[in-house]
Amino acid sequence: MRLALGLAARGLGNTWPNPAVGCVIVRDGVVLGRGWTQPGGRPHAEVRALAQAGAAARGATAYVTLEPCAHHGKTPPCAEALIAAGVARVVTALTDPDPRVAGRGHAMLRAAGIAVTEGVEAAAARRANLGFLMRLTEGRPLVTLKLALTLDARIATVTGASRWITGPEARRRVHLMRASHDAVLVGSGTARADDPDLRVRDLGIARQPVRIVADSRLGVAAESRLGRSALEAPVWMLHGPQASVPARMAWAARGAELIACETDALGRIDIADALRRLGERGLTRIFCEGGGGLAASLVQAGLADELVVFTAGRLFGSDGTAGLAALGVTEIDAPDWELVGCEAMGADLMHRWRRRRDG
Amino acid sequence: MRLALGLAARGLGNTWPNPAVGCVIVRDGVVLGRGWTQPGGRPHAEVRALAQAGAAARGATAYVTLEPCAHHGKTPPCAEALIAAGVARVVTALTDPDPRVAGRGHAMLRAAGIAVTEGVEAAAARRANLGFLMRLTEGRPLVTLKLALTLDARIATVTGASRWITGPEARRRVHLMRASHDAVLVGSGTARADDPDLRVRDLGIARQPVRIVADSRLGVAAESRLGRSALEAPVWMLHGPQASVPARMAWAARGAELIACETDALGRIDIADALRRLGERGLTRIFCEGGGGLAASLVQAGLADELVVFTAGRLFGSDGTAGLAALGVTEIDAPDWELVGCEAMGADLMHRWRRRRDG
Repeated sequence: MRLALGLAARGLGNTWPNPAVGCVIVRDGVVLGRGWTQPGGRPHAEVRALAQAGAAARGATAYVTLEPCAHHGKTPPCAEALIAAGVARVVTALTDPDPRVAGRGHAMLRAAGIAVTEGVEAAAARRANLGFLMRLTEGRPLVTLKLALTLDARIATVTGASRWITGPEARRRVHLMRASHDAVLVGSGTARADDPDLRVRDLGIARQPVRIVADSRLGVAAESRLGRSALEAPVWMLHGPQASVPARMAWAARGAELIACETDALGRIDIADALRRLGERGLTRIFCEGGGGLAASLVQAGLADELVVFTAGRLFGSDGTAGLAALGVTEIDAPDWELVGCEAMGADLMHRWRRRRDG
Repeated sequence: MRLALGLAARGLGNTWPNPAVGCVIVRDGVVLGRGWTQPGGRPHAEVRALAQAGAAARGATAYVTLEPCAHHGKTPPCAEALIAAGVARVVTALTDPDPRVAGRGHAMLRAAGIAVTEGVEAAAARRANLGFLMRLTEGRPLVTLKLALTLDARIATVTGASRWITGPEARRRVHLMRASHDAVLVGSGTARADDPDLRVRDLGIARQPVRIVADSRLGVAAESRLGRSALEAPVWMLHGPQASVPARMAWAARGAELIACETDALGRIDIADALRRLGERGLTRIFCEGGGGLAASLVQAGLADELVVFTAGRLFGSDGTAGLAALGVTEIDAPDWELVGCEAMGADLMHRWRRRRDG
């Protein structure tokens, strides 16, 4: 199952709206076939693994990280494919909460006389599939918040200098993280100040993450790098009712998708509403790269699930720009974030945290 | 030599103004004696190790982390003791830069027919003895700056709540770090806001570090915890010319030592001048526990040598209090701080950095 989970991880960021699944076919201790969900979400992992195994799958055991699908979608059900191949046993990590599956895959296999074992490595599979599961159960994608900070949590000097706070190894790791998410999200301030491209570079990936800007007034120029490349890789603009018609037309003409969202009392994008709309569009994993205002909105609304912090060996002082805007925290309760791990990343420190669910 | 360095580390914080030295006497692979500088700086490591070895030291090898002393101070020279014991060989890590020694210890041993090997594990010994070496070569103690911060580098919420940001494991580690330094230093703001005791608790140490407050106006009340305990463990008050006579008298009456320092244009203690004065008094290692103004003064003057950062899994937002005051950094050059290591400390993250010497 751990091998299957490793294969599944290869699909992260590439399979939305489908889950990233891994499958291994084993007989007498020999791996006969390995598969993972292909870019775009199809073919499914089981179909790939069965194709590799061929006739040898008869009587074998299939390890699958998620319950095989039981419904006819754009592909025939994988449960049927496993039955047709004659596997003797299926081991799964999770039940698929998709109402079209939800136990029916397991039932279909058992009805065909296949021995089914559920819940193997369930915790690891749940963590790996958290974005897919959250979209189905909470109606929104998982949000990973990236912060690239000085030791005193600044993102720019008093004069606005911000390139580069972290070193090349950390920046390369950020590209890898973008690639394992369905979309990259930034606020309008960051889009205006940095004119970023936000595409994954130098990793030879098949499918670029969607680039999303939260820009209630649509104040970012359609002639920006994002606008100019919107036909090469998707750009989605989250805007409010106050966005001008010419701005909407300019972005639409560039090929960007416009997503009308609710706004809060301060005229900013209502981030909870925006994430619901992104979940409806099939996104399961979002990588937010700032800036400080958007990051604070996510944290304040309890909508940031994971933190990835790169800490550079620098101090800018309190006259530098804070990496996170005001939150209005007054009391000191139990910590909200649980340390997942830390490691040196070139000259920088990378540390990861996970929001405590019962914090 | 590594064993000797490990023994030497036991003395850190306890031996000032003397260095913390370790000594191991070995013959035919058998350790005959082990010694380290005792609290207060005497007896020296060599004397302790030779006493353990007794007559067996004849013909043995002595590993010493620092060149044995050659001068008659409050104790007779250790070089003479090694000669008298009849050791055949002495291996050292460093030459003692003290002008009363400075190679004379090695020369005295060689003149007596003892084989001397110098510079073994010199880098590790230099790092461990950095405070002692800096006091002799730069005229000031080593400064370790501790920062206990939220993930966004805050030390208090918008309403001023600050207890506790880090957990019990991190706070216990801070006490251990205090014990391995000669003195603990805080600014007057921290002394007023927290009314700290600053003594090492629950570690059964023989000698408390000196507690120092940088308080140019002597505005901290002599009736504070520090003042009330000044007869139990030393308290040194760094003050400027503007300190009132009644305040000086009140602190002196409590048993605190008053150290008059120069002040800067803003009326704050000139930290470079203060460190010179502390070096003159024999301090080799200072542990600064904030607050943000004093920390910024040290960083800005290039006088913070090591950083110990405890990061708690919390976010207070930019309306919280910054852990470091303004620095006036404008350009982004090479990073000033080199990562030494990171580890989980209870629920918090501890990371250590060292100032790049050629930054």
